[in-house]
Order: sequence, then C-alpha cells, then structure tokens
Amino acid sequence: MPERAIGVFDSGVGGLTVLRELRCQIPAEPLVYLGDTARVPYGTKSSPTVLRYAHEAARFLLGQQVKLLVIACNTASAVALDDLAKHYQVPVVGVIEPGARRALELTRNNRIGVIGTEGTIRSGAYERALRAERPDVVVQVAACPLFVPLAEEGWACHEVARLTAREYLAPLLEAGIDTLVLGCTHYPLLKQMLHEVVGPAVQLVDSAQETAKVVAFQLKNRQLLHPAVSAPSPRYFVTDIPDRFERVGGAFLGETLLGVTTISLD
Amino acid sequence: MPERAIGVFDSGVGGLTVLRELRCQIPAEPLVYLGDTARVPYGTKSSPTVLRYAHEAARFLLGQQVKLLVIACNTASAVALDDLAKHYQVPVVGVIEPGARRALELTRNNRIGVIGTEGTIRSGAYERALRAERPDVVVQVAACPLFVPLAEEGWACHEVARLTAREYLAPLLEAGIDTLVLGCTHYPLLKQMLHEVVGPAVQLVDSAQETAKVVAFQLKNRQLLHPAVSAPSPRYFVTDIPDRFERVGGAFLGETLLGVTTISLD
Repeated sequence: MPERAIGVFDSGVGGLTVLRELRCQIPAEPLVYLGDTARVPYGTKSSPTVLRYAHEAARFLLGQQVKLLVIACNTASAVALDDLAKHYQVPVVGVIEPGARRALELTRNNRIGVIGTEGTIRSGAYERALRAERPDVVVQVAACPLFVPLAEEGWACHEVARLTAREYLAPLLEAGIDTLVLGCTHYPLLKQMLHEVVGPAVQLVDSAQETAKVVAFQLKNRQLLHPAVSAPSPRYFVTDIPDRFERVGGAFLGETLLGVTTISLD
Repeated sequence: MPERAIGVFDSGVGGLTVLRELRCQIPAEPLVYLGDTARVPYGTKSSPTVLRYAHEAARFLLGQQVKLLVIACNTASAVALDDLAKHYQVPVVGVIEPGARRALELTRNNRIGVIGTEGTIRSGAYERALRAERPDVVVQVAACPLFVPLAEEGWACHEVARLTAREYLAPLLEAGIDTLVLGCTHYPLLKQMLHEVVGPAVQLVDSAQETAKVVAFQLKNRQLLHPAVSAPSPRYFVTDIPDRFERVGGAFLGETLLGVTTISLD
C-alpha cells in the first residue's frame, strides 16, 4: 500500500495548488491528478449533480490504485466528503476542514473572514466547519467571483486584481477580522497580492497548504508514507481537450505539464 | 405558423442580451429562452460536445413549437449553425455572421477588431466570416476572459472593468482598428464603458442588436411576423437550479424573471 499514489481530484485546474503543496511537503509521494475540465465549474451546479461527479471521479482514481483521495475542490468537499468517506475504503481528505481548523488556531480576536467562489460561500460549508468547533466564532464571508478568472489570466499581481481585492475585502476588514481563509484552490496564486491588500495585521490561511499538512499527517499515522525519497512526475487526467489545462496549469505550477491524458467519466 | 414563438438558446445567461434586443425590435413576438446552465460554459468544451449540446437544445425548443431558432451563443454558433440549419425545418440564426457583416459595412479603413471569450477567439469563426466576404480585411482579435465575470458581477462601469478593458484593447487600438465587434453575448452590457475606452473614432458592433435585425428581416421575408402588437412575457427554461439565472439574468434585463423552469436535456 505505501507504494501506491495519492489521488487528487478537482473540477479543473485549481486543485493544482494542492498538488504543488503535496509535492513540496511530501516529495516522495507519487501523485495522480484528475481535473474534470469538461464539467467545470462545479460551484454553479446542484448538490446531487456534484455528488454524482465526485463519485465518478473517486471511482476513476480508485481504479488507478490510489491509497488516499484528496478532494481538492471546495464545492465537491462541501457536498461529497462525508459520502465518499463512507463509500470507499481509502482515507478521503477535503479542503475545507484543514483551512477552518488552522484559522481557529490563528485567530486572536475570534473574527475570521472567509473568501471563496459563489458556490462555496452559498454552501455555508466554512461557517459550519468553524462553528462546529467553536460556536461563538464571528465569521464574515465574501464571494469573490472575479478571483478565479484573474488567477487563470495570470493577473495575480496586476493593478486590476489589487483593485478588485480592495473592493471585495473592504467589508471584511471593516468587520475587524484578524484571519482570512483563502477558501478556493485558485486563491493561493493571489496570496502575495492579498497579503498586501489586507496588511500585516490579518493572517492568511492557505487551504492548499493546510490540506497537504493533513494528508502528510494521515499517511504517517496510517503508516502509508512512501519509502522512496523522491517521486516520478505526477500523472494528469482531464475530461476535455487538454490544451487549456496544460497552458493554465503549467502557469500555475511554473513548469510544463507533460503527459496529460483525456478520459471520459460519464 | 406566425403565431408561434421564437426559440432562443444560449449556454447560460448571456443570450438574454439577444432576447432583450428581440423584444425591443419585434415586441409582438412570443419568445422561449433556453439557458443550458448545467453545462455552461461551452467555450472550453470540444466541438463534438458543443454540437451535441446544440442539437439537444434545438430539439427541446422545437418541441416547444418554435417557428425560428436563434443560437445566441458564439461558441455554439461557430460550431453548430450549419449543422442545425441542415437538420431542422425552421430557419436558424446565429450571432456571428450578423456582427461580421455589420462590421464590414461600417469600417472605413478595413481594420476590424473582434473581442470574445477564449473559445470564440480560438475558433477563428469571426475571421472566417469576415474574410469570406472580404478576403483582404485586416482582423485583429483579442480574447477577454475577464469580461464575462465582470458583466455578471454587475461591474460594467467599475474602475476595474475600465482598467481591464484598457489592457485588453491596447493592441487593437495600436493596430489602428476603426470598428470593434463585441463577439460575445455578454459584452453589450459593457458597451458604454467600452465606448469610453476606445473613443469616438472606433465604432462598436453589438452582435445582439445585429442578430435581432437579421431575425426580424427573416421573419418578414418568410411572412412569419406575428400579427399581434405585443407579446406575453418570455418563457424561460434552464438546465440547473434557476437561482443564479434569475439573479444575474434579472440584472441583465433590468426586471424580475418570472416562471423560470428547470428541465433536463441529457
């Protein structure tokens, strides 16, 4: 079992920030990534539909003999984590709880901001995760629908991104948050700019980083850590033509994505 | 036949700008609108997939007894117009040729700019339509992926939109275009701001407006114009939960969207 790969799945390219953190934190682990690019985005789809997609993705990755599943997509984590964890034998890690838990560790004034896509914010998943651990926490949320296209456009440090961030974050800063959860797997790409906009008094929680920490911890705990010291390149699977995934994903990872294979899930 | 409705279909909410122009130019015509919101966006999907979606949408609208089909989506127009026109008995109007033809009428210096989504620009459909009529025309294109989310966010006149437009349009203005085709059904919402950015020397072609003109012309030509003087409210169908369609679409049309029905196409 330890020799097996970790399976990472996302609706598209955003989960590559989680893959990047996994490679950084546990470089010996072989990785298989699945981006459901034919059906992206999930955030505007209904829960039964997203649940079905998540099961299809999980079954595909289990067919690749993975030892652990990472749902590197906030919408799918919110909708499908419990169900997937019940259905399959391997451990399943989502991206919401790791970020929520870290925010609760960091906050000093008990006021936490959460930003994400419309779907994630509408789902209330972060509020639930935060309040489940600390019922009196003050949570201020904001949907930031322009951040994903800005990240994909490579405009992370563009003046347009800065202006957009100032607009979206103003109510959160006025509410006095001291911790901000980046509740979308695209947002780590905007971290530097967001840090400048919120200032040094607000700590950022990178949920990709926190998720990778939880994966490392779980593997260690279950004695599933790979015995090697380095891993081969990740294998990538997508559900539509790979052009855009290769281009945008390559920019996300800062390297050429080789061997992207198109598969069908439905 | 003249009593029948016009069927308008788009991948989502953008085609409502075409519906708005139809209501303005031919207010007696009953309208049925179908937004394939479960599968939006089409621009990142492969051609066979988009062709299949377009046929499914056409069959649904023909089941609603429409007398004419409007493909109010640039990607679907580029991929599926000819095939749909061959397959079905009713006239089929796309959004690309009307805009391209109008641009050729307007340009004085034979330099035309075209902006659209990544999918539309990559397809080369506008260049083909323009060059088919005038082989020596100079066409300068730009993909503007941030414009759709900006329009949907209601930020059409926001400083962020202006800055974004200046960035996207700089190469077109440097190339000396005197005519700019808004090659995406969302872009009419940005028209005022785009007009300010390009200045009075560049004429804008609103493809929603031009498409409605072609529809009016075709109905008249085939003696299919509705005999009434005003029509009932349009009927709206979507393929996923209607919340977002109602909210964003209502903002597009400046009115509450009533009676949005969810249907399944696949």
